[in-house]
Amino acid sequence: MTREEAIQALEEYRVSIDALDLRLLALLNERTRVVEDIGRVKRAAKLPIYEPRREEQVFENITIHNGGPLTPDAVKRIFERIIDEMRTIQRIRMQTSVETSTDGDS
Amino acid sequence: MTREEAIQALEEYRVSIDALDLRLLALLNERTRVVEDIGRVKRAAKLPIYEPRREEQVFENITIHNGGPLTPDAVKRIFERIIDEMRTIQRIRMQTSVETSTDGDS
Repeated sequence: MTREEAIQALEEYRVSIDALDLRLLALLNERTRVVEDIGRVKRAAKLPIYEPRREEQVFENITIHNGGPLTPDAVKRIFERIIDEMRTIQRIRMQTSVETSTDGDS
Repeated sequence: MTREEAIQALEEYRVSIDALDLRLLALLNERTRVVEDIGRVKRAAKLPIYEPRREEQVFENITIHNGGPLTPDAVKRIFERIIDEMRTIQRIRMQTSVETSTDGDS
């Protein structure tokens, strides 16, 4: 492979990466919206926000279905970050909701 | 909303989350395969593996296209983790490749 052929191939791979990233981004935002819906329902029904058992199920689901090349540990670390970011958003929404419902009583 | 209705709604949201996670997982593994291809081409053409400018482009691409609800910072942290895991895989592949080409000379 010549240097020019390599540079051409890399350019094509980068177009693929950019397209994949936009699909990942869309799914991540879609997942966040569902997490927000879950938060709303839990608050309305006064159910506990944090459920460790459910988090285990999420990790089980992805671990069982991972065919690689990402290792199980790599997948776990990526999803830990995803879940952590969405938990932060839930927490912010909850604070906002509490502040609104107590009408600035804090 | 009764408690029963809430539990039913949550169950449906969880089915959605599990399905979204499998789509995310598939895209993450697809992205990893492209990163592996990029590594192979770079090694064959003796091009530098690490390109900070390209990494900036990746972040620009997702930041420009992010419509939320994830914040730009949250998106950046998730993609930092994704890129970091794939960089680790590149490094492992490179070591393996060097070891193979030097025929156990280390």
